[in-house]
Amino acid sequence: MTPQELRRLSAAGEFHKPTAGYCDGYVQANLLAVPSDYADAFEQFCRNNPKPCPLLEKVGPGNHFTSYLSDGANLLNTIPRYLIWENGQIINEVEDISEHYRNDLVFFLLGCSFSFEEALVKSGIALRHLAQKKNVAMFNTTLALQSSGPFSGNMVVSMRLIHRSLVAQACAITAHYPKVHGEPVHVGYPELIGIDDLAKPDYGEPVEIKNEEIPVFWACGVTPQNVLIQSKVSFAITHAPGYMFVSDRKNTEYFQCVYQ
Amino acid sequence: MTPQELRRLSAAGEFHKPTAGYCDGYVQANLLAVPSDYADAFEQFCRNNPKPCPLLEKVGPGNHFTSYLSDGANLLNTIPRYLIWENGQIINEVEDISEHYRNDLVFFLLGCSFSFEEALVKSGIALRHLAQKKNVAMFNTTLALQSSGPFSGNMVVSMRLIHRSLVAQACAITAHYPKVHGEPVHVGYPELIGIDDLAKPDYGEPVEIKNEEIPVFWACGVTPQNVLIQSKVSFAITHAPGYMFVSDRKNTEYFQCVYQ
Repeated sequence: MTPQELRRLSAAGEFHKPTAGYCDGYVQANLLAVPSDYADAFEQFCRNNPKPCPLLEKVGPGNHFTSYLSDGANLLNTIPRYLIWENGQIINEVEDISEHYRNDLVFFLLGCSFSFEEALVKSGIALRHLAQKKNVAMFNTTLALQSSGPFSGNMVVSMRLIHRSLVAQACAITAHYPKVHGEPVHVGYPELIGIDDLAKPDYGEPVEIKNEEIPVFWACGVTPQNVLIQSKVSFAITHAPGYMFVSDRKNTEYFQCVYQ
Repeated sequence: MTPQELRRLSAAGEFHKPTAGYCDGYVQANLLAVPSDYADAFEQFCRNNPKPCPLLEKVGPGNHFTSYLSDGANLLNTIPRYLIWENGQIINEVEDISEHYRNDLVFFLLGCSFSFEEALVKSGIALRHLAQKKNVAMFNTTLALQSSGPFSGNMVVSMRLIHRSLVAQACAITAHYPKVHGEPVHVGYPELIGIDDLAKPDYGEPVEIKNEEIPVFWACGVTPQNVLIQSKVSFAITHAPGYMFVSDRKNTEYFQCVYQ
């Protein structure tokens, strides 16, 4: 399926699944939309915390069609599932946000680690959650973010189990994708970042830990949702975790040699 | 001091110290010299195990002057200290090997992690052993090497303590220097590679482990010396650990974008 087809089906109410595993090779993005009163503060929050919140495209106010990540996708219905937030709580889960749209909404599309998973797998680094078609395990941490206006809180990380002999390579490969979270924020020793039990992720699904595997932690695009809970912004719309905006950009476009 | 000056002083018997901290920016190299009967097998051993044994230059038989790493340095006296080996045992420690020289000796100069330490420090990753002017801590491991002829054994690693927030960056930076050991072979969890006590290195000096620091392990150019012990080659000459060949090549020449 092409990204255009997936977005067309989604807009028609005919695609209802998490987007992982669809449209291989294409960038998927996290969404946070807030009223324009909050937009400058959130944009600064992204600049302050580029690892969990790498900003790929900003749309609006007064517009809800992408121009960079795709040519004119309608952000009101091309994501398969949305969450509606009020005062830091999810009040609704919908497949179309047309009736929640306000003219002052600003849409922020943020990079997603699905993009670097392609590079890891191509380098021979197996990822069990992909093989088992599970959502990646994600955890709240004690890693404090740099606040901006009402936006503050702790980082959410995604966790992948990597054989000890490949951990450093996984770091090196993902460092080449700074706009989709880049290199890990932490390697091994989950207790150092406030994670008590790898078998109980805060989001996504647990995976079995095999012998000689090290848990490796990347900054996660679910972080803004944790920040919404902690900062109690009056109104926001996000994608539902796992149900991403599928763009027309290729993952390979985000490869960068950062240590030139 | 320039590399030429250091080598001139060494040849004149006027330089007797470990070379770490001298001639910043220039590549230092490990030495192993074996009779030509062993040379092909050792060259293949380097190809089999490029992380611990990255071959930078081969000299001889019938010649003991470098041409690539420097323009004509005499390998018999420009290294400050040498070890003479017989049947896997050190039988002598000397500052000039002229009287041990045999016409059939082949000299192998191997990359050294001093080269990537410059890049780490420039990126803001502090290395305590450098600040404290200590030799880096090195450990024997259970990581088996791929044997070639008489050459077999386990890898020796150098260990650096890195703050947890910088571990992945340290992996990414050193991955750009594949000819000087590249990215780490192991991160954290020393027991997984057979290291029982970080306070008791097999070579070099221990350093204090501070809060939130992770031990990170790189393949080490002392590996061939461990292999000599384990494979009991009849005759060999090496540098003494820490007393390296200081070349005219710049560390920056060994930067490579390996994940293009």
